[in-house]
Amino acid sequence: MSVLVVGSIALDSVATPFGVRENILGGAACFFSVAASFFAPIRLTGVVGDDFPDEHVAMLRERGIDLLGLERRRGAKTFRWTGSYEGRMDTAKTIKTELNVLGAFRPEIPAAWRKSPYVFLANGDPVTQAHVLDQLEGPCFTMVDTMNLWIEHARPKLLEVWGRVDGVILNDEEARTMGGSQNLVRAMNAIAARGVRLVVVKKGEHGSVMLKDGEFFALPAYPLEEVHDPTGAGDTFAAGFMGRLAETGDTSWTGLKHALAYATVTASFTVEKFSLDRLLEIRREDLDRRREAFLAFTRY
Amino acid sequence: MSVLVVGSIALDSVATPFGVRENILGGAACFFSVAASFFAPIRLTGVVGDDFPDEHVAMLRERGIDLLGLERRRGAKTFRWTGSYEGRMDTAKTIKTELNVLGAFRPEIPAAWRKSPYVFLANGDPVTQAHVLDQLEGPCFTMVDTMNLWIEHARPKLLEVWGRVDGVILNDEEARTMGGSQNLVRAMNAIAARGVRLVVVKKGEHGSVMLKDGEFFALPAYPLEEVHDPTGAGDTFAAGFMGRLAETGDTSWTGLKHALAYATVTASFTVEKFSLDRLLEIRREDLDRRREAFLAFTRY
Repeated sequence: MSVLVVGSIALDSVATPFGVRENILGGAACFFSVAASFFAPIRLTGVVGDDFPDEHVAMLRERGIDLLGLERRRGAKTFRWTGSYEGRMDTAKTIKTELNVLGAFRPEIPAAWRKSPYVFLANGDPVTQAHVLDQLEGPCFTMVDTMNLWIEHARPKLLEVWGRVDGVILNDEEARTMGGSQNLVRAMNAIAARGVRLVVVKKGEHGSVMLKDGEFFALPAYPLEEVHDPTGAGDTFAAGFMGRLAETGDTSWTGLKHALAYATVTASFTVEKFSLDRLLEIRREDLDRRREAFLAFTRY
Repeated sequence: MSVLVVGSIALDSVATPFGVRENILGGAACFFSVAASFFAPIRLTGVVGDDFPDEHVAMLRERGIDLLGLERRRGAKTFRWTGSYEGRMDTAKTIKTELNVLGAFRPEIPAAWRKSPYVFLANGDPVTQAHVLDQLEGPCFTMVDTMNLWIEHARPKLLEVWGRVDGVILNDEEARTMGGSQNLVRAMNAIAARGVRLVVVKKGEHGSVMLKDGEFFALPAYPLEEVHDPTGAGDTFAAGFMGRLAETGDTSWTGLKHALAYATVTASFTVEKFSLDRLLEIRREDLDRRREAFLAFTRY
């Protein structure tokens, strides 16, 4: 079944201990689309400027990603993010954000996509996320991502969006902030108590934990000796999760657990190289093979 | 089979967001002994002063802990540690350390204990740890704990000790420091490359990961809404691990995985109250029951 994703498409400039790359393909929706395309047909809604290289569009198209919702705005520039990672590389330091076309992004979902069975709203203004939810028709499984900016400055709107979706996916810092506790379990319970049905928390090198109907489930991260660039890890984690759900149609508690394992291995490939470089060189079998190795790493 | 433990016995003063306690029972060997006594007969080697309350000795004896190696030094004071935890409570802030009798602690292992099949050397000067190893006879499974102080100031001696034991147990900060990398997987591989056969890393709320013969295995932590006092978590984690190994006699890779689960649940009880309060009110069935719940929390 198809997955509709709405979010940013970017040109990133990234510095990590493993090197510096400029104007590489990035953006949450872009990372998500490519990673989720291993599992299911993807519908991408986003906006770029006329500086956006044709090669990226061609790559997305080659992977079978439906670009009906991709707007290319004349005379405008693509969203750009410049950031760096140091030390443990668990937090991105944003050096510069140039919103450009993203500033006025008010996504219109193509009529044919309004009944998408799976929907992922990548990090963005909750007003924009709500605007997308307003356009959806019929039953669908929806998840949203966010970031501290919205938690701090748009909490009421964010909670409104969270009450309308099937699940939220966020990192542990965001969960602690939103849940109002340094204890992550307590923070997640607090978020669930706000009416959020499924809370998925990404913890980077420490794996992930999710909560649904009072039950917790946790997985470690896949052990990697080298993380070259963490950019997109969270988005491709969400992609493995949503992609696997769309592939199987199983959103039961058991289905969610299996999806979390696919989320983990998908993200583990992403960070092995800059941008989408690693995901673009692997095949679906590589994901399945690493998932097997991951099972051995966690099962006893 | 019996477990010999050598290490500190302390009177702690601890402040956490949940309260302040003064002169409560603490010390690595003490935490270890009580927790490991759920699984196996324990032999405790340590030293206290004549200020050490009789009630603590009585409690240890009641739990069947063999105190043949407990030295009570006249005219001297017990080791005291004063510390606090704040925020995420993942790091203890040491306010005061009064070594007292521990300063000149040169443990003599009773002759009858030199053939102990399982030996745990709690955190301490590696010179002292080596002195204990020198006294051991016959085959035994030995593990050692340490702290950053020794990693920074006694690295050669520490590595010498590590080369003589079956495994080391340390927290993730210590592993990163010792392994010379912010990437934990890389750091653990570096430690293993130094000739350490089994590397067990405790990550507090993020669970644990171990490495043996190039294979990794990880578990999340047991999800707790409230951590009242993390003191002793690491020591009782080690106790659950060693205790379970001694109980089953199974030190295979599978046996180590099961031991890691018992380590996790044992430590999870410790932190629910101050000092040994929680461990002293639970029974073995409680550990088994929580282990079952923990399985559900991690298995898919």
